[in-house]
Amino acid sequence: MFKITAPDAEFEARVRLSFAEQRVMATIGASLGIVEPGAVDVVLPFRDDLTQQDGFLHAGIVAAVADSACGYAAHTLMPATARVLSIEFKLNLLAPAVGDRLEARGRVIRAGRTITVCRADVVAVIGNDEKLVATMTGTMMTVQ
Amino acid sequence: MFKITAPDAEFEARVRLSFAEQRVMATIGASLGIVEPGAVDVVLPFRDDLTQQDGFLHAGIVAAVADSACGYAAHTLMPATARVLSIEFKLNLLAPAVGDRLEARGRVIRAGRTITVCRADVVAVIGNDEKLVATMTGTMMTVQ
Amino acid sequence: MFKITAPDAEFEARVRLSFAEQRVMATIGASLGIVEPGAVDVVLPFRDDLTQQDGFLHAGIVAAVADSACGYAAHTLMPATARVLSIEFKLNLLAPAVGDRLEARGRVIRAGRTITVCRADVVAVIGNDEKLVATMTGTMMTVQ
Amino acid sequence: MFKITAPDAEFEARVRLSFAEQRVMATIGASLGIVEPGAVDVVLPFRDDLTQQDGFLHAGIVAAVADSACGYAAHTLMPATARVLSIEFKLNLLAPAVGDRLEARGRVIRAGRTITVCRADVVAVIGNDEKLVATMTGTMMTVQ
Repeated sequence: MFKITAPDAEFEARVRLSFAEQRVMATIGASLGIVEPGAVDVVLPFRDDLTQQDGFLHAGIVAAVADSACGYAAHTLMPATARVLSIEFKLNLLAPAVGDRLEARGRVIRAGRTITVCRADVVAVIGNDEKLVATMTGTMMTVQ
Repeated sequence: MFKITAPDAEFEARVRLSFAEQRVMATIGASLGIVEPGAVDVVLPFRDDLTQQDGFLHAGIVAAVADSACGYAAHTLMPATARVLSIEFKLNLLAPAVGDRLEARGRVIRAGRTITVCRADVVAVIGNDEKLVATMTGTMMTVQ
Repeated sequence: MFKITAPDAEFEARVRLSFAEQRVMATIGASLGIVEPGAVDVVLPFRDDLTQQDGFLHAGIVAAVADSACGYAAHTLMPATARVLSIEFKLNLLAPAVGDRLEARGRVIRAGRTITVCRADVVAVIGNDEKLVATMTGTMMTVQ
Repeated sequence: MFKITAPDAEFEARVRLSFAEQRVMATIGASLGIVEPGAVDVVLPFRDDLTQQDGFLHAGIVAAVADSACGYAAHTLMPATARVLSIEFKLNLLAPAVGDRLEARGRVIRAGRTITVCRADVVAVIGNDEKLVATMTGTMMTVQ
């Protein structure tokens, strides 16, 4: 569906550096998982202080990890000097976001010169099981 | 566009109680503004530890306050015993989320028995000026 | 919220010409209403052969007029040589699309150099009354 | 991800009957492809009278077949007496919708008692090749 060779050989270092600059990720305790061409995972251990009124992770927190996963998945396929900007995203909440941790799996659906469209499935991992709790479609822009 | 009489006279107390149970709101420093039938504002002072790589508030944080504003705007028009659930939302990011504080203004567009659709405009306030930085459309469900 | 002076004085002629080239609009019987800087209306008389299984206008038809209203609203604010491209839109269906006619009212929310975000409220007009039946948020791109 | 046994053994006949009642599908020349539990395809041969100003199928037409594919995919998993209602959808346009025909492949992501979330990938088929031209995420409601 898209060319999966990253144009910048240093894409992983570039993504990990930028992620480290997202101070909110440290604040909520999220970290990067895999960083591959067109694919980035963000992992978030469950924390009580990130919940909504029913004790589930708040939709905004789910959106935060899904958006970063989408944005950095897009970023892996951009030139070395490019920045990535989220234009918009849509998040469908499918099940309560509760478990040991969330994993947001950002994948590029279509990489264009200016616009890259990504999807992130967010699963809740509980022991050896996982459950799809949300899915995002996001539009990212390459900024030179 | 919708009936703006709240069916539950205690709607404001109910919303404020539920908001106080959203632990993530205390974690990020957000608080409730107005709580009126079909209209709820959420206010978030700017904090460096909620930013993305460019120093703007992360899109997930913008989504968090917009989603809570939408959800509680919907909640004001629900029966006393109902809970509110976000089914999905879409967020368009229009300008960098930076300033003294954000205000997310959730408004009901259409209140149905099961489904309520809301919009939240999110403005960044800087001194006496404000700028629209994001807009959300969200679908909320009444759960009895 | 945005600069409402059209950069191209001939914007209305340009929009009306392009709309006339959208052959699907003639096929479904839609026509242009107002064409102003940042604001375009599309009007669709009700027709039985555009309905879904319950006798209401199909959501895709609602999307068609809303998308054209959004796209041309964006187009009014673009340079004379630019083309407009829909990147994505979201449509919330609020009430059955039935009546004498639909009016899709596309309005620019934020006009940028590359990306323009629009909203279209779609109302069903019945006699002297109108009812909001759908609302779209769309992202449009300026293509030079 | 979801239970793929249809609760109503007659689901295919029920879907095909309802589709035949969507008069707009005959108007644009669309027909049903596969109808399986949680999966419905809608096929649309290319027609010049459905195009936008650049000669591609209009986004509203793409939305029409994607929405019907999503709605009927959801419908296959509903009880015999239920009706299906589109609450909202988001469509990302990834490439020009041009070719011999479109195929909109609606798939259920999560089937709930009230809310079913679907995705539809829309491909343009040209000879033996196909290309992803759009992707929809839609929220459908079961109406008893």
